[in-house]
Amino acid sequence: MQGTQQPTSEPTAYTPTDRTVPTRSAERASYDKELVHSILDEAYVCHLGFVRDGAPVVLPTLFGRVGDRLYVHGSTGSRPLRMTGQADPGLEVCLTVTHVDALILARSAFHHSINYRSVVVHGVAHQVTDPEEKRLALDALVDHVVPGRSADSRPANKKELAATAVIRLDLNEVSAKLRTGGVNDEPEDLALPHWAGVVPLRKGYETPLDDPDLAPGTELPAYLG
Amino acid sequence: MQGTQQPTSEPTAYTPTDRTVPTRSAERASYDKELVHSILDEAYVCHLGFVRDGAPVVLPTLFGRVGDRLYVHGSTGSRPLRMTGQADPGLEVCLTVTHVDALILARSAFHHSINYRSVVVHGVAHQVTDPEEKRLALDALVDHVVPGRSADSRPANKKELAATAVIRLDLNEVSAKLRTGGVNDEPEDLALPHWAGVVPLRKGYETPLDDPDLAPGTELPAYLG
Repeated sequence: MQGTQQPTSEPTAYTPTDRTVPTRSAERASYDKELVHSILDEAYVCHLGFVRDGAPVVLPTLFGRVGDRLYVHGSTGSRPLRMTGQADPGLEVCLTVTHVDALILARSAFHHSINYRSVVVHGVAHQVTDPEEKRLALDALVDHVVPGRSADSRPANKKELAATAVIRLDLNEVSAKLRTGGVNDEPEDLALPHWAGVVPLRKGYETPLDDPDLAPGTELPAYLG
Repeated sequence: MQGTQQPTSEPTAYTPTDRTVPTRSAERASYDKELVHSILDEAYVCHLGFVRDGAPVVLPTLFGRVGDRLYVHGSTGSRPLRMTGQADPGLEVCLTVTHVDALILARSAFHHSINYRSVVVHGVAHQVTDPEEKRLALDALVDHVVPGRSADSRPANKKELAATAVIRLDLNEVSAKLRTGGVNDEPEDLALPHWAGVVPLRKGYETPLDDPDLAPGTELPAYLG
């Protein structure tokens, strides 16, 4: 029917590009949005790569996600954030997140491996100048550390907002890569006397430690239970 | 006395450079070799950054250390390893390792943070062509996953050695950075009713899972106990 809008359904996967199709182990790659988001959301830090004076720099940093947008923050004086000045065309970055889930001990040295889940994002990061977007980004950064936490803390005041720069990187050219499963030894090695198997790594929290100056009666919140 | 050699004692710290002195929180930086090595040795993966077609690329990868040399391995077909061809001048890289030790939940959103330990290495990576150095590097890679493991596995055979490229990065321009301690809220925020404190993250192994095809009588080795 003329004039009728087709319902646009959100794509469930990112489109592969030359940079996001691995040269090796392509069967371990995924472009599924849900998987990419879950890997990103479980990570406390990302590794942000950029080029300075022609050389690569990789720095760990906190980040947050709102839909298909990632946010990184830092002091207005920090190098990567200065390099995305508001007037310039942005900073080309590669943002990578990795979880090591288990060690894979094979009988052969060659087949030692790890089970991992990683996400690599390529793109151009831009400074966030809209005050409302900046506030949402800072909430997302706090909620990324502990979901629900931004509503249970004092929001940034004017001075803190002015001291904080936020840059945005859209999720567009992005892929996940993962290894799961067990040991892949050669059939002729199976009878060797070396132990082989999967060593899962511990995840999660230890018991939270109260700050010594907690206001009287302040209980551990349910989101840390 | 003429002709007498001074005893040369090994320096215990790396020399700071422009690139390894942070613009912010310089008090968190360290160049102490023992600290740098301990942070590197505790990590399962590093994030290796390099420049391809003018753009940054950051990939997670296993690595090993022998003294002041780091080794990264991969298929001879993988991109960063092909880029350090034996005849060329090497590949400029930045290799970064990060541990997240604890979440720091402050009363103010602004003072949320993490306790972390990171190491950033700048340098030029070269392919290892000496067969003996390559063997030592591969042992170091396996022992990096589980100390002592290379002696308890079948060494790489000729075919496996030929399929594996190893690159070396010398520890020279390198720094550690770390945050420790508790919450740093503003004095006027201490009476706020929000819980604040340190949430340590779990470390170490879960119970190892035997490969289903273990040779009869193979026990879990003591180094995994």
